[in-house]
Amino acid sequence: MSATLIDGKTVAAGLRAEVAARVTAFHAKTGRRPGLTVVLVGSDPASEVYVRNKGIQTREAGMRSDEIKLPETTTQAELLAVVQTLNADAAVDGILVQMPLPGQIDTQAIIAAIDPAKDVDGLHPVNAGRLAQGIDALVPCTPLGCMILLDKAGVAVAGANALVIGRSILVGRPVASLLLAANATVTVAHSKSRDLPALCGQADIVIAAVGRPEMVRGEWLKPGAAVIDVGINRVPKEDGKTRLVGDVHFASAVETAGVITPVPGGVGPMTIACLLQNTLTAACFRDGIDPKSL
Amino acid sequence: MSATLIDGKTVAAGLRAEVAARVTAFHAKTGRRPGLTVVLVGSDPASEVYVRNKGIQTREAGMRSDEIKLPETTTQAELLAVVQTLNADAAVDGILVQMPLPGQIDTQAIIAAIDPAKDVDGLHPVNAGRLAQGIDALVPCTPLGCMILLDKAGVAVAGANALVIGRSILVGRPVASLLLAANATVTVAHSKSRDLPALCGQADIVIAAVGRPEMVRGEWLKPGAAVIDVGINRVPKEDGKTRLVGDVHFASAVETAGVITPVPGGVGPMTIACLLQNTLTAACFRDGIDPKSL
Ligand SMILES: NC(=O)c1ccc[n+]([C@@H]2O[C@H](COP(=O)([O-])OP(=O)(O)OC[C@H]3O[C@@H](n4cnc5c(N)ncnc54)[C@H](OP(=O)(O)O)[C@@H]3O)[C@@H](O)[C@H]2O)c1
Ligand SMILES: NC(=O)c1ccc[n+]([C@@H]2O[C@H](COP(=O)([O-])OP(=O)(O)OC[C@H]3O[C@@H](n4cnc5c(N)ncnc54)[C@H](OP(=O)(O)O)[C@@H]3O)[C@@H](O)[C@H]2O)c1
Repeated sequence: MSATLIDGKTVAAGLRAEVAARVTAFHAKTGRRPGLTVVLVGSDPASEVYVRNKGIQTREAGMRSDEIKLPETTTQAELLAVVQTLNADAAVDGILVQMPLPGQIDTQAIIAAIDPAKDVDGLHPVNAGRLAQGIDALVPCTPLGCMILLDKAGVAVAGANALVIGRSILVGRPVASLLLAANATVTVAHSKSRDLPALCGQADIVIAAVGRPEMVRGEWLKPGAAVIDVGINRVPKEDGKTRLVGDVHFASAVETAGVITPVPGGVGPMTIACLLQNTLTAACFRDGIDPKSL
Repeated sequence: MSATLIDGKTVAAGLRAEVAARVTAFHAKTGRRPGLTVVLVGSDPASEVYVRNKGIQTREAGMRSDEIKLPETTTQAELLAVVQTLNADAAVDGILVQMPLPGQIDTQAIIAAIDPAKDVDGLHPVNAGRLAQGIDALVPCTPLGCMILLDKAGVAVAGANALVIGRSILVGRPVASLLLAANATVTVAHSKSRDLPALCGQADIVIAAVGRPEMVRGEWLKPGAAVIDVGINRVPKEDGKTRLVGDVHFASAVETAGVITPVPGGVGPMTIACLLQNTLTAACFRDGIDPKSL
């Protein structure tokens, strides 16, 4: 085992503590606390756990946390009305509509209805466009987390060859924009790409966001590469139970990589921490405060 | 000389004729003609020529063409007011504010004020975001032109390794998004990239949008590569006059490439033709017509 592990749990805890301290500074300056409202439609058990964790961590960071639970049968018009109420509520800095939404709801129309200034998930086309154009934006949380992990691991991004495997709106594309903004030479690969092993072999940084268990093999990697594994895949174990694995074959990759994130305990814990940071950022923008000044 | 030349003049003329035919169909369907309004601030001679050509070609395609000329001393507030009037004018499908704008005007604020549905330059963050997210958008003209040239030259984009040199909001980034949407594996390089020759050597498609005369050398290219040269650079000749060259060293590149665009006569003529196409597309979207149905 040669690679250094990037401990996402510890980095995420540090980020949460940092956000909490900045929230205190924000409160001292403005007399108010940033507020995040999560909207959950239906009762998907995984989403419920996730929303509960968001609530706990938001309050721990000193922010206001609200949850709005709507029945599985909620109509498009009803959900739009809720979003519009939250858009108009001055105490709400961040609105997060938990995905996935039930089939009767047009997800894209809901995202487009959220005030871009409160879009802490960073999925509104205005925020995607601002990110693509290098303007201040609310950036999707998981990609932000990837960048923070690279930074904490001391990886030099500027000038590096970075390969992003996956081009989703949620992960692949925004992480590619962030890497480009940080002056990496960025390659985006996907299911139509040829010779992924060769592409990996040229990359100083590999971000895997594919959703295919253990697809990226250690033998493909350039020795010393930084590997950020976004994948979260549940696979069966021999005893009939399941375990979580990433998109990278950890056992072989750890032999070749310079630094690598484990799954679980790598990118996963960063997502909520970055959501808290985004909520504070949104509150700062709304109050005309430079987030970096806190 | 081995590469096949891609004749942008002929392709652009064909596209203009195609747009004109579709404008006739649009008129038959709706009883109205798509309208483009160009706003020119000041009297930059190059911009004046360009705006005049736009007007001629717009009318030749059967569309309404208007020009609004404002003095060099126009204020931000005055230009914003003009944009808002055009936003509200039902007969205006496309608004193009000619760049560059005088120094007293905040270009980004003007672009953001244009109704995204009339943003035929494709520079509004909403259009950039929709492009980045793979949603129907108005796409910047020069990148569209590059894609059409690749298509007309019979270049297989899906699965190809495409290298975009340059990451501007006007050319590099949007052409990278279009190549990705067309299923290329896309690499974006820029001034901080290391070893550009090696990056070129792996690319089946090279798009050069750098603004450095003849920077990309034929020896760097993979034999048979498709080369699209976006650069327009004026360089001195021995006789004291000037000539136009691209970002690619044509004389050496033509020996290695499979297909290549010349400068002038390659990408250049495509830009206005694509502007006409965008104006028709905007008119279709505004009238709820599928542009592909015409
Ligand atoms: N908090 C977190 O840590 C977090 C957050 C979000 C997601 N995730 C995890 O990250 C992974 C990716 O999520 P996502 O939302 O981005 O997934 P997604 O929307 O399904 O996108 C997957 C991407 O991978 C590409 N792909 C599929 N098969 C491939 C192959 N054989 N070779 C190369 N590329 C291939 C797809 O290409 P095409 O575009 O050509 O189809 C697509 O762009 C999942 O495991 C997910 O659970 C984790
Ligand atoms: N109708 C047309 O045909 C048309 C339309 C628009 C533009 N153009 C021409 O296309 C060219 C590019 O235009 P633009 O607006 O995109 O220019 P731009 O905004 O100046 O962007 C130039 C890009 O090239 C990169 N670059 C500079 N030096 C480099 C180097 N040595 N190696 C690699 N990359 C380098 C820059 O990198 P950094 O980001 O790191 O600075 C930047 O991203 C110009 O010649 C322009 O005249 C033609």
